[in-house]
Amino acid sequence: MSTNWKLTLAYDGSDFNGWQVQPSLPTVQGALAEGIERLTGERVLPQGSGRTDAGVHALGQVASFALKAPIPAENLLRALNRTLPAALRVLEAETVPEDFHARHSAQSKWYEYRVFRGEICPPWLSRYTYALNWPLDPEAMQQAAHSLVGEHDFTSFAASDPDRSTRTSEISPGQEPTEHNNVRRLYHSGWEFNGDLWIYRVHGSGFLHHMVRNLVGTLLSVGRGQFGRDQMPALLAARNRAATGATAPARGLFLAQVIY
Amino acid sequence: MSTNWKLTLAYDGSDFNGWQVQPSLPTVQGALAEGIERLTGERVLPQGSGRTDAGVHALGQVASFALKAPIPAENLLRALNRTLPAALRVLEAETVPEDFHARHSAQSKWYEYRVFRGEICPPWLSRYTYALNWPLDPEAMQQAAHSLVGEHDFTSFAASDPDRSTRTSEISPGQEPTEHNNVRRLYHSGWEFNGDLWIYRVHGSGFLHHMVRNLVGTLLSVGRGQFGRDQMPALLAARNRAATGATAPARGLFLAQVIY
Repeated sequence: MSTNWKLTLAYDGSDFNGWQVQPSLPTVQGALAEGIERLTGERVLPQGSGRTDAGVHALGQVASFALKAPIPAENLLRALNRTLPAALRVLEAETVPEDFHARHSAQSKWYEYRVFRGEICPPWLSRYTYALNWPLDPEAMQQAAHSLVGEHDFTSFAASDPDRSTRTSEISPGQEPTEHNNVRRLYHSGWEFNGDLWIYRVHGSGFLHHMVRNLVGTLLSVGRGQFGRDQMPALLAARNRAATGATAPARGLFLAQVIY
Repeated sequence: MSTNWKLTLAYDGSDFNGWQVQPSLPTVQGALAEGIERLTGERVLPQGSGRTDAGVHALGQVASFALKAPIPAENLLRALNRTLPAALRVLEAETVPEDFHARHSAQSKWYEYRVFRGEICPPWLSRYTYALNWPLDPEAMQQAAHSLVGEHDFTSFAASDPDRSTRTSEISPGQEPTEHNNVRRLYHSGWEFNGDLWIYRVHGSGFLHHMVRNLVGTLLSVGRGQFGRDQMPALLAARNRAATGATAPARGLFLAQVIY
C-alpha cells in the first residue's frame, strides 16, 4: 500500500531552471525529488499542477506523488523543510485519495504579476518584480484587464510551443489537454495599485504557455497608449501572437494558488 | 580640476563577495569601479565607509571618489543605475568638498540585524533574514541589548583579525584606526519586535570586524537562557571572544546608515 501525497510549495524561481527536472541543472521538481529520496529512500517524480518557467516564482504551487513509507504529515513537512534549499519551502503536506493528481485534478489557477513603479528598485525587490518607471495609465490598463474576463481563444497570447499549454478544468483525470485548443476561461482579471507596487491578478480555468506574461506585456502597452483600452477583443480575435505586446519578464510572475 | 563625489548605495550582499575588490570575484567596490569606468573612462577605486563581508547587505553604504569629468549629479545617478547590476543601486549622488572621505569623515554608523521568527521562512526573505524558530525570551534580549549602550572595550565581540576593525569617530582625515584598540561607543542598542520580524538596531562610533554579528549571536543566546540578561558587563569585562556567543549569519545584517 502506498499513500498519495499533496504538497503546497512556495519557491523563489530565480534559483531554479524552472519546474521540470533537467540533468545537472537545479530545478524545483528535481530538488523536491532529491529531498524526498534523502528522507525516504524512495525515488519518485512529483507531478506539479503545471510547469513554471525559469525565474517564475510560486506562492502556492501544488505537487503530488505516492510514497510507500508511512510518515505523519507534520513530520514530512518539517523534515522536507530541513533538507530542501531555503529557496523552496513546503507550506502544507496532506494525504489525498489515490485518484488525486496535481495537474489533472486542478480546476483553476490564480497567478499574480508584480510591477515596481518607483524610480529606483530596491535590490531585494528586483528578483521579484518588473521595475518599470515610465508613465502608464492605470485606468486604461484596468479597463483592458477587465475586458479579458470570460471564455476566449487566447492564441494571440500563446507562446509558439502549444504543447506546453494546460487546461485544468473540463479535463477528466488522466486526460491530457487537447492540443491546439487555445480556448480558456478567465474568471478574474484585474490590477491592484498599491503605491509603487502594481499587481495584476488573474484567475482562469487554465493558461497557455507564457499567457500571463504575454497578457501583462500587452496590458502594459495599453498603459503606454500603444494599444487602446478597448482593443483587447480585437487582439483576441486576431488569433495572432504577432498582433500583441511583448512578453513581460519571468521575475514578476508568481503562481499564487491552484484550486481543486 | 577634479570633483569629489559621495554616493549612497543599497545592495543585496548575497550577490557579492563582500565590499572589497578582488580579482575575478564579483564585489561591490569592483562593480562600482567598473560602472564608473564604463561611464567616464576614468579608473577610480571608490572608498567605502567600511568593508562589508560577503552576504552582508546595505541600505545606505557610502562611497567616495574623485572624477575629472564634469557630470551633473542627477545624470551620474541615473547612468550608474542603468549600467550597474540590479543588486547594486545608487540612491543618492552628490558632490562634496575635496577633504570628504567616506571612511575617515564618518562620525557614526547604524546597523540592523533581521531575525525571522515564523515557522516557515518565505523563500523571498531567506536571503535577508536569519530564520530562527526556537523559543526566545524577547524581554531578556532587550534588557541585554540596552546594557551595551555606552563606551566599552568590545574585544569579546571582535573577530580574531583586529586590522579589519574601524573606528569612525575621533579619527582625523587620513589617520588609520589605532590597531588593537577595541574601545567603541554605542549610542543605541535595542530590539524591535514586529510580529515574525525581529530587528536589532545598533548605532555606534565604530564597529570591530564581526562585532554586530557577534553581539546578535550573544543576544540570541541570552534569549535562549544560555547567558543571563545581566551578564553583558561581565562578558565585556572578560575581553575574550571565546566567552561569548556564536557569530550570527551574514545574511541578516544590513549596514543601514553612515552619519557624517
